[in-house]
Amino acid sequence: MTEPAADLSRAEIEPAVLDLLGVLAYGELTAFERLADDARFAPTLADKAAVGGMAVAEFGHFRLLQRRLAQLGADPDAAMQPFVAALDTFHDSTAPRDWLEGLVKAYVGDGIAADFYREVSSFVDQPTRELVLEVLADTGHAAFAVQRVRAAIAAEPALAGRLALWARRLVGEALTSAQRVAVDHDALARLIVGGRGDLAEVGRLLARLTDAHSQRMASLGLSA
Amino acid sequence: MTEPAADLSRAEIEPAVLDLLGVLAYGELTAFERLADDARFAPTLADKAAVGGMAVAEFGHFRLLQRRLAQLGADPDAAMQPFVAALDTFHDSTAPRDWLEGLVKAYVGDGIAADFYREVSSFVDQPTRELVLEVLADTGHAAFAVQRVRAAIAAEPALAGRLALWARRLVGEALTSAQRVAVDHDALARLIVGGRGDLAEVGRLLARLTDAHSQRMASLGLSA
Repeated sequence: MTEPAADLSRAEIEPAVLDLLGVLAYGELTAFERLADDARFAPTLADKAAVGGMAVAEFGHFRLLQRRLAQLGADPDAAMQPFVAALDTFHDSTAPRDWLEGLVKAYVGDGIAADFYREVSSFVDQPTRELVLEVLADTGHAAFAVQRVRAAIAAEPALAGRLALWARRLVGEALTSAQRVAVDHDALARLIVGGRGDLAEVGRLLARLTDAHSQRMASLGLSA
Repeated sequence: MTEPAADLSRAEIEPAVLDLLGVLAYGELTAFERLADDARFAPTLADKAAVGGMAVAEFGHFRLLQRRLAQLGADPDAAMQPFVAALDTFHDSTAPRDWLEGLVKAYVGDGIAADFYREVSSFVDQPTRELVLEVLADTGHAAFAVQRVRAAIAAEPALAGRLALWARRLVGEALTSAQRVAVDHDALARLIVGGRGDLAEVGRLLARLTDAHSQRMASLGLSA
């Protein structure tokens, strides 16, 4: 740890780093599975191949995180295990029923999660932070999802209402599961609050996440 | 085409090459989806990651075939399209219900398919043949499946009967769908029969496929 955040000792940050890498690693592994599964819904072979390629990119991120955990002397499986139940519950309760729901989930859901993890990463050591930013980089999802969803809504405007509702449900479920993770993972929760010094700053973090989310919804042509 | 097979003209082989690459490309794309889906059943995170890695390797093969089709001036999607229905029907009718059925399918089903495509490839031009052999190379499946299935049967011998039945059903469904593909794809069918000159040689091909299949069943500890 090169630069411990204000108010947080090294001993407090280290377990939080393992938690952060563990939750991200399992997140990438499930993102891989989920995208590969969404490929089933693809209306054309080209779409199927495109989504498959994104799934493969997520698996590459998973491998980077797995390797980093091993380098830190941690057992990658043990680091992921505490987050399996919460992430599986989230995905089971938000399984897309069709191609468009899958795209909205990949763009809106992964978008808000990525913003959140980026914020958290600003309080960890630089090599970890760089790795986190690398694995959160967009793999082509965003432009692909925006293009496909906008085209679908242009062809059938009634879709906008259903997809906007779906996106709101996603965010609600994501918040519920984030809260559950925070309650169970003290070190991670303290990194988020403690790294910021006060609750006003936590409020500003939430405002930033909400703003970015609204922008994503607008770019899809949906009301937030 | 550098070495047209006996009795087959170049004009007969070229469409067969596109068919062969097309069916293999769609086969790899579905293998990717299927393995990624089987990862859901994995009993441990390490197993999930291992199967995910195999899925990613299959997607790499898909990309090689897609690139080769494009190099030959073909539209990869158009080359795959004629095989979508047959392969989807096969996979829908043989969806594994659990982890072990998935492993047996990956090892036994993909094994017999790979043997078959390898035989077919002996009559096409050398660059195509080399590519086919490369994409059919085992990605770690075999040893992984054998180890996991044998261990499961050792722990619960009654499993052997159910899994042997499952493997027989897989082979039956695979033969049905291979037949359907052959009926619809003259060029490919003629490559298999014509490349061999007579039906006795086709009989010997089937015998070789059956022998290799029996060996795979034996290595799993199952009766063929």
